Amino acid sequence: MATFGFRILHRERDSRARLGQLQTAHGTLSTPAFMPVGSQATVKGLSPEELTGLGAEMILCNAYHLYLRPGHRTIEELGGLHQFMGWPRGILTDSGGYQIFSLAPLCRVSDDGVTFQSHLDGSLHHLTPETAIQIQESLGSDIAMTLDECLRYPAPLEAAEASLARTNDWARRCRNARRRADQAVFGIVQGAHYPQLRVKAAAAVAQIGFDGYALGGLSVGEDKTTMHAAIEATVTELPEIAPRYLMGVGTPEDLLEGVARGIDMFDCVMPTRHGRTGWLFTSFGRVLIKNAQYAKDESPVDPECSCPVCRTYSRAYLRHLFLAKEMLGVRLNTLHNLHHILTFMARLREAVGQSRLAAFREQFYADREACRA
Amino acid sequence: MATFGFRILHRERDSRARLGQLQTAHGTLSTPAFMPVGSQATVKGLSPEELTGLGAEMILCNAYHLYLRPGHRTIEELGGLHQFMGWPRGILTDSGGYQIFSLAPLCRVSDDGVTFQSHLDGSLHHLTPETAIQIQESLGSDIAMTLDECLRYPAPLEAAEASLARTNDWARRCRNARRRADQAVFGIVQGAHYPQLRVKAAAAVAQIGFDGYALGGLSVGEDKTTMHAAIEATVTELPEIAPRYLMGVGTPEDLLEGVARGIDMFDCVMPTRHGRTGWLFTSFGRVLIKNAQYAKDESPVDPECSCPVCRTYSRAYLRHLFLAKEMLGVRLNTLHNLHHILTFMARLREAVGQSRLAAFREQFYADREACRA
Repeated sequence: MATFGFRILHRERDSRARLGQLQTAHGTLSTPAFMPVGSQATVKGLSPEELTGLGAEMILCNAYHLYLRPGHRTIEELGGLHQFMGWPRGILTDSGGYQIFSLAPLCRVSDDGVTFQSHLDGSLHHLTPETAIQIQESLGSDIAMTLDECLRYPAPLEAAEASLARTNDWARRCRNARRRADQAVFGIVQGAHYPQLRVKAAAAVAQIGFDGYALGGLSVGEDKTTMHAAIEATVTELPEIAPRYLMGVGTPEDLLEGVARGIDMFDCVMPTRHGRTGWLFTSFGRVLIKNAQYAKDESPVDPECSCPVCRTYSRAYLRHLFLAKEMLGVRLNTLHNLHHILTFMARLREAVGQSRLAAFREQFYADREACRA
Repeated sequence: MATFGFRILHRERDSRARLGQLQTAHGTLSTPAFMPVGSQATVKGLSPEELTGLGAEMILCNAYHLYLRPGHRTIEELGGLHQFMGWPRGILTDSGGYQIFSLAPLCRVSDDGVTFQSHLDGSLHHLTPETAIQIQESLGSDIAMTLDECLRYPAPLEAAEASLARTNDWARRCRNARRRADQAVFGIVQGAHYPQLRVKAAAAVAQIGFDGYALGGLSVGEDKTTMHAAIEATVTELPEIAPRYLMGVGTPEDLLEGVARGIDMFDCVMPTRHGRTGWLFTSFGRVLIKNAQYAKDESPVDPECSCPVCRTYSRAYLRHLFLAKEMLGVRLNTLHNLHHILTFMARLREAVGQSRLAAFREQFYADREACRA
């Protein structure tokens, strides 16, 4: 890949954490990185300028949503996804596997691919590993994902094994289908919550060979110990020099634990979704902005936060906007939450760069305990 | 009023139009001016920075809405409306009369005032001219409005006469109730669609004496000729040196015709409300952004527009956001519409300043005909 590259700048000795730089046709991503989610070619409520202002270097868009509406061909004709949405930096597209299995009212899997009903109009569609790559090539994202089968948690071992064989076969077909030299493709490692399957899957996907590797099907209901074990089992089998992406994760704690286990990239709807429900991240725990205690509270959401929202608005005003169902409330909440998580990630990068992640981690849990006390 | 003043910089010889500057504690308003509507202490979807970026110098907030939620006392304790919503420029508050008569599920008028049910929770409230002023003084707007009775169109002459006597009495009580030296109060001239009543009302309200005068109860269903006649009848009776405000109006055509008849200030929900329904103003007529013809249209909403939306986004993208019910769509549509109307008003000011409003008007209607052809 001429335009794609991953460089590890620093490795921690006491953990698997590493500091890196991922190069794409649309700039550099400093890793470990958090990618805000903009499924439908927009991070809900925010403008591209606000996102770059927050320091976001790559966002995630969703091929399933964009395939159904407005259609990948339309976006291609309009100059590709970056041009379409006015976003100059990196875009990673999810292949749509997860959405098909979670959103489509009807979906039937065969070895060839998956037939599903649109959640928008009930129309029938068939997606194969090949078309999944073609759609993402039309969209023109910087990183495309392979098509994978996603199981509900907890999946029985036999079902997980059968599904895994199919997902690995699909990964190979995805790699063979790729045509664009300016788009990286990441392979997805599945294996449910079975470490032995994760090991097998990681080895198989690494064997096929991708620009990067993702861990799918985690944070779907399993406990933290199970998730950490699955991450560890997977990471050990993946090539050291390739970026690793933990899909759909997660909380600040999840990011910290993921980074310590060698994860380079994360995405999660939580900061944006919580913004819409008025759940705000702070340095001292969550703030539920609708609560009556904030009715006359003139302090910012988080006095330690330097985001544009905390510099300007009071909790009382944000509460008013939330109760009055005013759009600006959602927008400001989302801005604050994304600032919180992106700043947290920047602090994680700093800690890794200075080889003091263990101390950072200790302080993180001590602070959390202090807030609970 | 130490902080309030109105200066007429230029008068047209061929029309009643004038160019002015209205001074408040929160800056200068160049008139004729259009005020975006932010009923609930937010112009729906937009940030204060975006509004100042568009050149808005004064916005309208609504005392009825803010009295009910979050409460004027709360806003007062939080430092007043400007501080509460982070808006550094001028604010005019409507007294709430219009909202009570249009939104409240139940409302009973007596000479003392109006008893109404909250549209939010059904609770019962009583508003008098005195409390209407007190509420607006708590809010701390730069311009407060008197309480008026608003009739449905068409009102029978006798009912309009009786109502007018009450509104004029309320206006006097409002003037006597005012205590803040840093807040201007505008009297409202009613009189339904009867020019003879408008003349009478204007004379009566001018006799009481206010910092400015508003024309209420227009653009409520009457035809343009009737509205223009009512404006003309009113303006003739108002003091030349005071600002004149046509409430709840209107379209670009209404602004043009109002300015030519000596109106200095306007407000209307149309640019923001149309933004939410995907109705976009352009130099060549409206664009209904949901229409299929824009599905692959990569041109901006209005190629002649210099707003941030037209500089960045295509009709195809705005259509996608609208169909996907994405918040960013409403935000961008609103930004564009407000830019259109505020720019139109700036062009009107320029034309008045150069005493060429008649030519401007002729060109405006010629362009409109050309678009229809």
